[in-house]
Amino acid sequence: MDYQARVHKLAERLRGKRGVDALLVTHLPNVRYLCGFTGSAGVLALADGGGHSFATQAALFTDGRYTTQAREEVSGARVVVGKRNPLLEASAWLKQQRARRVGFEAEHMSFATQRHIAAALAKPAKLVPTSGLVERLRMIKEREEIEQIRAAVLLASGLFDRVLRTIRPGVREADVAAELEHAARRDGAEGMSFETIVASGSRSALPHGKASAQPIQANGFVILDFGVILAGYCSDMTRTVCMGSPSKRQAELYAAVLGAQEAAIARVSPGRTVAEVDQAARSRLQKAGLGRYFTHSTGHGVGLEIHEPPRIAKGQAEKLVPGMVITIEPGVYLPGEGGVRIEDMVVVTQSGCEVLTPTTKELIALE
Amino acid sequence: MDYQARVHKLAERLRGKRGVDALLVTHLPNVRYLCGFTGSAGVLALADGGGHSFATQAALFTDGRYTTQAREEVSGARVVVGKRNPLLEASAWLKQQRARRVGFEAEHMSFATQRHIAAALAKPAKLVPTSGLVERLRMIKEREEIEQIRAAVLLASGLFDRVLRTIRPGVREADVAAELEHAARRDGAEGMSFETIVASGSRSALPHGKASAQPIQANGFVILDFGVILAGYCSDMTRTVCMGSPSKRQAELYAAVLGAQEAAIARVSPGRTVAEVDQAARSRLQKAGLGRYFTHSTGHGVGLEIHEPPRIAKGQAEKLVPGMVITIEPGVYLPGEGGVRIEDMVVVTQSGCEVLTPTTKELIALE
Repeated sequence: MDYQARVHKLAERLRGKRGVDALLVTHLPNVRYLCGFTGSAGVLALADGGGHSFATQAALFTDGRYTTQAREEVSGARVVVGKRNPLLEASAWLKQQRARRVGFEAEHMSFATQRHIAAALAKPAKLVPTSGLVERLRMIKEREEIEQIRAAVLLASGLFDRVLRTIRPGVREADVAAELEHAARRDGAEGMSFETIVASGSRSALPHGKASAQPIQANGFVILDFGVILAGYCSDMTRTVCMGSPSKRQAELYAAVLGAQEAAIARVSPGRTVAEVDQAARSRLQKAGLGRYFTHSTGHGVGLEIHEPPRIAKGQAEKLVPGMVITIEPGVYLPGEGGVRIEDMVVVTQSGCEVLTPTTKELIALE
Repeated sequence: MDYQARVHKLAERLRGKRGVDALLVTHLPNVRYLCGFTGSAGVLALADGGGHSFATQAALFTDGRYTTQAREEVSGARVVVGKRNPLLEASAWLKQQRARRVGFEAEHMSFATQRHIAAALAKPAKLVPTSGLVERLRMIKEREEIEQIRAAVLLASGLFDRVLRTIRPGVREADVAAELEHAARRDGAEGMSFETIVASGSRSALPHGKASAQPIQANGFVILDFGVILAGYCSDMTRTVCMGSPSKRQAELYAAVLGAQEAAIARVSPGRTVAEVDQAARSRLQKAGLGRYFTHSTGHGVGLEIHEPPRIAKGQAEKLVPGMVITIEPGVYLPGEGGVRIEDMVVVTQSGCEVLTPTTKELIALE
């Protein structure tokens, strides 16, 4: 990854938009994106070296636990291993650099920490809240990032095919999750993107039904929603299978959700708003009389974080741009009865989109 | 768990210490502790009903995804499922309750959110920063909590014995982690407390050496540091084993760390400060000429979170109190050579402490 190019792009936005002459990056996925550091304690400080362009100086502050790791991983920034809290060290350094207007990530710094750092910086330096500066860069994926995401998606898709064999009446949801996660590790995943959802029978009506000790019944839906992390990048997929032959009602519910999901995918194209994509799924389900059972948004961006901008939801004006990677995952949830959700990851291309998830969306019936 | 008693205790502190007449609890482990809710989106609002005691009204705000779950889990608080962000709903409710001085958790609310809520509350209500109010209650575990933690510790300890068999030269660190995590799920763990550390050979000199694709060599140390979550409560343990027969140097390093660990445990007793416990481990390693290789603190509290107060570290004045559950985990890390860490969980008792972790601390040599 070309970290220096990213820092350079960010620096341009800083100068252009905010009139800040320094930035404290504290959100760890943003730190990683800008300099490659993957540890759990690190702050990236950027300072304007002066001149008519934002001639950036960058330094990554961490603690003694990460000395070796930071030196191996970080590129495009000095590594400073301090004795104190990395954020205090970074603030002290910015003072030395004569920074005056120090941007910070207002969504990712606690109120208490902000007060602490404001006091440490002291006059004439001033903390200036910023919002989503790095996230907006991260939203448009580079080719290399798309390939990393594709690899994570393919790994997860391969797991789905294997875990299907373990789904039988009497097997606990947690056992299915255990097999899935074990296979993921074996295949080289660094971890799961989020707590694996295996929601069977009436629990499939819970949009966030983490795998429980409940045994799978001989009928009803089973929702599997999971993802893996590979080289830091997340994947996310959902499939719903049916225990036994689907009833007419089950087949109709499934077909309605699949129709909505495909309608939303068909709408993904550069220049369209994310709200239009959401509406495509929503109006399909409304026509099927299921609108009020679709209780969440249609999707979200995925990258170094499992949930990142844009949100594919009502009222969101963001326009799609080539390189965005998003999920499309409508669902319906009928309390006490059951639910269906189908989710793919897609990348926005010049002319439309490419579906990254290769797994079949035909309704699979398991005996 | 007696959630109402906890809320009552908290309300007393609010009135006594802060002069606030309401509190917004946003940190999810604190929400869980006070009302039992385990979902990923929830805010607990407490309001003073008036009168000379803090006659608390409590309400848990969540969204449509958690309607069923919240009603099942929450006790001692009303459940409100709103259309908007739960924090905005909670703020609107506090306005109705005529709250004037609304405490918020300053370490757990972002600067941006604080601004947003301050604007939503509006005059005459005022947001008042608070710090560690619920954490201080959580620090002293109730009997039932200690038994939950004990169960998590025993589950993890059982895993260690089994995973030892999988550690052989040529096996990848990640494969050992995969076996461990699979066995944890099978035994009923809800998940791991943190990313499993399997650090072999020279990687054992990384205090945070997450399991990698590196194959384990025929000699050198292997550090295993892991924990499980059971009923929401975390465990944490570390053992270091030796591939092949330990050299004299390896035996000395191990003995020094074990001596430091046992010295620290011997110092755990009500009324002592956590700094004294830290110092007990530190001075042992200093005497062995290894002081500068002990680069982190001696331990931390464990409960609903894997890291919670108190920190067992230099300069910390917190006194030990019966019911605190902490880790004791000194280590030494020799760059390029290797490292040793040994970690138990202990509960502070009336007369000293009880070590919860039953696993042997003799140096295990694996062929």
